[in-house]
Amino acid sequence: MKAIVNVFLKDGVLDPQGKAAHHALKSLGFKNVNSVRIGKQIVLDLDATNKDEALKEVEEMSETLLANTVIEDYTIEIVE
Amino acid sequence: MKAIVNVFLKDGVLDPQGKAAHHALKSLGFKNVNSVRIGKQIVLDLDATNKDEALKEVEEMSETLLANTVIEDYTIEIVE
Repeated sequence: MKAIVNVFLKDGVLDPQGKAAHHALKSLGFKNVNSVRIGKQIVLDLDATNKDEALKEVEEMSETLLANTVIEDYTIEIVE
Repeated sequence: MKAIVNVFLKDGVLDPQGKAAHHALKSLGFKNVNSVRIGKQIVLDLDATNKDEALKEVEEMSETLLANTVIEDYTIEIVE
């Protein structure tokens, strides 16, 4: 079973990596970009057969290690 | 219009960040994780009304700046 965790900075938290990419895109001539936010996409390959259990476990992983919940939010998607 | 670009390392390219996360998850007691790959998720807010044109532009951004196509692949999703 595959789980995809998208971790992104909360609204209002400064994203210097995104700002840098935005600036670079503008320099390259891409004028109609309003904002750029850069997050992480974590793809986990799991030994699990039960979708609900997998979701619960990945939630625990996200809370303890994958995301810094002070400044980051995350979404979890279980695939197949 | 919002565009989401997922950038991830090609298969076979070593992912030290993913390896570290995998190791840390195992140390924390999450035993049934087989592998972890970590990529980037870039969310762009665009001034565009035409979906096809937006897709074309984001493709160009990905090729020139957002992804290193030697070692990385990317997918683009245009939202609303």
